[in-house]
Amino acid sequence: MRFTSERRLEDGVLVRDFTLGEIRGTLWTPASAAPAPLILTAHNNGLPRHEPRLVARARRTAAHGYTVASIDAAGCGDRPRSAADEQARADLRRAMRAGEPVDDIFESFIAPLVEKATPEWRTTLDALLELPGIDGPVGYSGWTAVGIHLAATDPRVTAASLFTGGYVPSAQREEARSITIPLLLLLQWDDEGNPRDRALTLFDTFESKEKTLHANTGGHTGTPWFETEDALRFFDRHLKRG
Amino acid sequence: MRFTSERRLEDGVLVRDFTLGEIRGTLWTPASAAPAPLILTAHNNGLPRHEPRLVARARRTAAHGYTVASIDAAGCGDRPRSAADEQARADLRRAMRAGEPVDDIFESFIAPLVEKATPEWRTTLDALLELPGIDGPVGYSGWTAVGIHLAATDPRVTAASLFTGGYVPSAQREEARSITIPLLLLLQWDDEGNPRDRALTLFDTFESKEKTLHANTGGHTGTPWFETEDALRFFDRHLKRG
Repeated sequence: MRFTSERRLEDGVLVRDFTLGEIRGTLWTPASAAPAPLILTAHNNGLPRHEPRLVARARRTAAHGYTVASIDAAGCGDRPRSAADEQARADLRRAMRAGEPVDDIFESFIAPLVEKATPEWRTTLDALLELPGIDGPVGYSGWTAVGIHLAATDPRVTAASLFTGGYVPSAQREEARSITIPLLLLLQWDDEGNPRDRALTLFDTFESKEKTLHANTGGHTGTPWFETEDALRFFDRHLKRG
Repeated sequence: MRFTSERRLEDGVLVRDFTLGEIRGTLWTPASAAPAPLILTAHNNGLPRHEPRLVARARRTAAHGYTVASIDAAGCGDRPRSAADEQARADLRRAMRAGEPVDDIFESFIAPLVEKATPEWRTTLDALLELPGIDGPVGYSGWTAVGIHLAATDPRVTAASLFTGGYVPSAQREEARSITIPLLLLLQWDDEGNPRDRALTLFDTFESKEKTLHANTGGHTGTPWFETEDALRFFDRHLKRG
């Protein structure tokens, strides 16, 4: 892991961009020198990690006392997209315009992205936990499908706040049955691209004893600001020590 | 309104029982002398207002800075039950034991209770707002059906936190379409007596632009403690001034 830039914000949060092989990421570290629990914040494929809402949330989370890491995984942000990705996006646009079913296209497009992104998150996690001042336990926030795949395969992830804002591949809908860590599932009630009944079925599928669903009116990008604060309290219950 | 007892708790909260005609109630007032917004906390028919969980929640809410009022409405708590109520309860127990449908019994039992309880809440609200140190705006917390009926008919109620823990009569399912105030709907995902799909349909019915659903795993009485704190933050957003 190599840091390529570093700046200190007014609230004392340290922001550093890093590279790790082909992975491009950003690390937000709280002002306090004490070791802080780590939260991985994964956005899904459509957004770059520098998107202002994501940055604002990461900064708020670091100011609250967590180390926050974000990466543009394979095919995300400004990383190169494969010819197959580009073809799938074109197919998707065409099918949506024509009002045709899009599930098969989503499955063939998103499932490989999840398969490629998850090992990159694991590599990032390995490298982060070797840095001084970064401490477990580890929380996960964001892209639901990657969160499921990572939590199902990496016992270091001990709590997850998932945003059900996109297509969840069939493999992860199945893996959800094996998830037992505390979960906060966040859903936009009128999300154009994510049928509500699927999100509710997914919530029902998780085996976690402690799982909470939050739903708000509005479309995909309409999540109210107070949900960032609610997520912090969720992590405080599960990641803070003592 | 006549106060019949008064005691000061360790956290400074003043607890007073009162009578108002046939109504029996309790008022929790925060330690600060400044006027505090009022929250009406209505429990449904099965519980007395002295039930420990309800008392703990009212006390916490007052310690946070709200004036809290609770009443045993007609047929609730230790107030006399009508012969028709007793018959309905007997019918309900028999039908449940026999595994028969209970919707018609619930409708004939709960609908009149809601019709009788709501004017008592309005009378209580009138009397409370004449007391010194009690200020609007007014929030409502608890029994969903009474909350809908009160909010639909009394513009002084400006935010409501509803617990979908029981049968909602058809009249209130219809009235829900006219509700536009900010809402927090709280649901236990595995509530034995309250089918999940009905609670979700009810959430969908409200016209409120700001409505939030919280659902947690577990049965009717399993609501986690942090939901009390979440409700306080909901009221802070909508009832606190300045």
